[in-house]
Amino acid sequence: MRIGLLGFGVVGRGVYELTAAREDMQVAKVVCLEDVTLPDAEVTRDFQSILNDDSIDTVVEAMGGLHPAYEFVRAAMEAGKHIVTSNKALVATFYDELMPLAQEKGLSFRCTAAVGGGIGWLSELERSRRAQKLEQVRGIMNGTCNYVLDSMARLGLDYGEALKQAQSLGYAEANPSTDVEGIDTWHKTILSANVAFGISVNREQVPVCGIDKILAEDVAAFAEHGMVCKLIGAATRGETGISACVQPTLFAKGTLEAAVPANYNLITFRGESSGIMSFYGQGAGRYPTAYNVVQDCVDLLEGKGFYSPYGEKTEVSNQEEMCYYVRGEEDAWLAEHTREHWGSGVITDLVPVQQIHSWRKAHPNAFLAALPEGE
Amino acid sequence: MRIGLLGFGVVGRGVYELTAAREDMQVAKVVCLEDVTLPDAEVTRDFQSILNDDSIDTVVEAMGGLHPAYEFVRAAMEAGKHIVTSNKALVATFYDELMPLAQEKGLSFRCTAAVGGGIGWLSELERSRRAQKLEQVRGIMNGTCNYVLDSMARLGLDYGEALKQAQSLGYAEANPSTDVEGIDTWHKTILSANVAFGISVNREQVPVCGIDKILAEDVAAFAEHGMVCKLIGAATRGETGISACVQPTLFAKGTLEAAVPANYNLITFRGESSGIMSFYGQGAGRYPTAYNVVQDCVDLLEGKGFYSPYGEKTEVSNQEEMCYYVRGEEDAWLAEHTREHWGSGVITDLVPVQQIHSWRKAHPNAFLAALPEGE
Repeated sequence: MRIGLLGFGVVGRGVYELTAAREDMQVAKVVCLEDVTLPDAEVTRDFQSILNDDSIDTVVEAMGGLHPAYEFVRAAMEAGKHIVTSNKALVATFYDELMPLAQEKGLSFRCTAAVGGGIGWLSELERSRRAQKLEQVRGIMNGTCNYVLDSMARLGLDYGEALKQAQSLGYAEANPSTDVEGIDTWHKTILSANVAFGISVNREQVPVCGIDKILAEDVAAFAEHGMVCKLIGAATRGETGISACVQPTLFAKGTLEAAVPANYNLITFRGESSGIMSFYGQGAGRYPTAYNVVQDCVDLLEGKGFYSPYGEKTEVSNQEEMCYYVRGEEDAWLAEHTREHWGSGVITDLVPVQQIHSWRKAHPNAFLAALPEGE
Repeated sequence: MRIGLLGFGVVGRGVYELTAAREDMQVAKVVCLEDVTLPDAEVTRDFQSILNDDSIDTVVEAMGGLHPAYEFVRAAMEAGKHIVTSNKALVATFYDELMPLAQEKGLSFRCTAAVGGGIGWLSELERSRRAQKLEQVRGIMNGTCNYVLDSMARLGLDYGEALKQAQSLGYAEANPSTDVEGIDTWHKTILSANVAFGISVNREQVPVCGIDKILAEDVAAFAEHGMVCKLIGAATRGETGISACVQPTLFAKGTLEAAVPANYNLITFRGESSGIMSFYGQGAGRYPTAYNVVQDCVDLLEGKGFYSPYGEKTEVSNQEEMCYYVRGEEDAWLAEHTREHWGSGVITDLVPVQQIHSWRKAHPNAFLAALPEGE
């Protein structure tokens, strides 16, 4: 396999290093803006030189962002090159274009590192689907949010302090909005649902609530009730159709989710034969992420295409019902659904996921967190 | 694939049910002692009828125990049939016979359900080895022991009560010695080490200490120090060679291991690129176990052989050093190594794994538990 590598940042350099000693694959050209010299690969700023090089069979996209990643990947596919990428935004956003194109052209398209970093999550779903139907996917998919929430819970920091600490350690970006507002988890949830259920969810119908409105007083109220808050992306195929959303969610202390420390990820599926299966590891970082890019290249050499056949566009009903902690902007609807009070927040009775996220859209400064089942 | 199924107990019946609706595999004959009639498979007590049936390409062994499972599996291999089994005792005990034989005959041999039940642990090791070196495997591999330890820690039961409860729920056998004395975990640890490191460990050098000597007072002393006890099988490839053992091990409350409830398993590898990766799920039970037998059959159809090449016999040095909690039978050696007292037990300074397990052999009624690193 001769690889054209797009990008030479954290992930790109990791891919270059991990493939250096392998005999079955080789980074032949690197397209990047940095001034680097590599002993055994051509470095260029000109994407066309990869496109026009027939000896390059596979493009590894490690640039991130939607543009020009999308244009480059699309052009590479039109030129008959297989794709490996860790870019969740790209795949989730252009799913309905790129997956049919890969299928039509008979190309491999792998993006295991896009969800869970070093965890081979999408490959796990692919393997599992061979032997059972999947009923649910859910998990802690964003290391930045977990780091912030964990620091708030364990060290009693407020949101701003915890975020600053995450930034100083390189666990959060200077502009952290994609992570803390839940957009990154949203992309990963959409991708997970698509692969697990063999569908293409209508992503406009997948609501997202991040952690950027959480206060130390919320965390204190949770602790008082033996609970810990995590940002969870989840999708379920149930009697009421497809439910899928991203939202802060409470877990009792002593549960597996509550124990996930620092910037780690924990992602779970429920299958009809296996029951609950969870996968834990580094959700980001140079070598964990590059490791799964290399795994994708090995799968590609073994002839694997995408993880599941491209499935049809599917509506998200979100009629599943949960109880919520809500703080801020009380109104008639919330008062009607209030069951008890926790600190300055309230606990609702069972409400449909769709309904509370609509309410939250009208109250953008409110903070909400789903309660575990049975609470 | 036409399957000859040996055994129609918990796992065997599960395999029959899960394959019933599949087009790519079919249980053609079942060898068992029970009186069952199946609509689409011949049931017989005569193993020879599978051996002599050329249309059967794969034998699924779900009888358990060493004999006659070993004789049947060996004869099936001699007759050129692929093997899928969930029998950890069989594979760990006859590793040095069966693996070279499979290699020599060009046969597939899969036993994913042998470690972790529904967790695809050995397949995970196989996948991981494609892209990195593994440095350590370790985990909670026995649901019976975890159930007993979890009940003692959460409900304050003593060992006998917890075991009785596990038995009444079907989580422990009438004669639980294989589980509580750590033999089951020992088999799984040996298999994990062999596959992860591509070796064949000298299993006589892998010491095992179970949980059958634990008392409520030990659990109380651990709780006082914020610790929870789990039975851990672990193997490490390090500077001092191979360390491998089975022993009760303490984890701080709030860690992932401490959070593993009831009869669940959590198994972890550490790889040079991925870092820590953990896998959590049902370590036993009809459908989780049968699910991984079916996965093995799918892998077999895709041409997969064993998980790693058969590697050479390797000595276990166990020179790795740890601190231990030890209760019972104080003597000069223990007094010399005592650092502090916890309840009626003591905490040792750093001692080599090999040394403390030798000491324990001479003091079979003592209970020991390794402390986490840095404690």
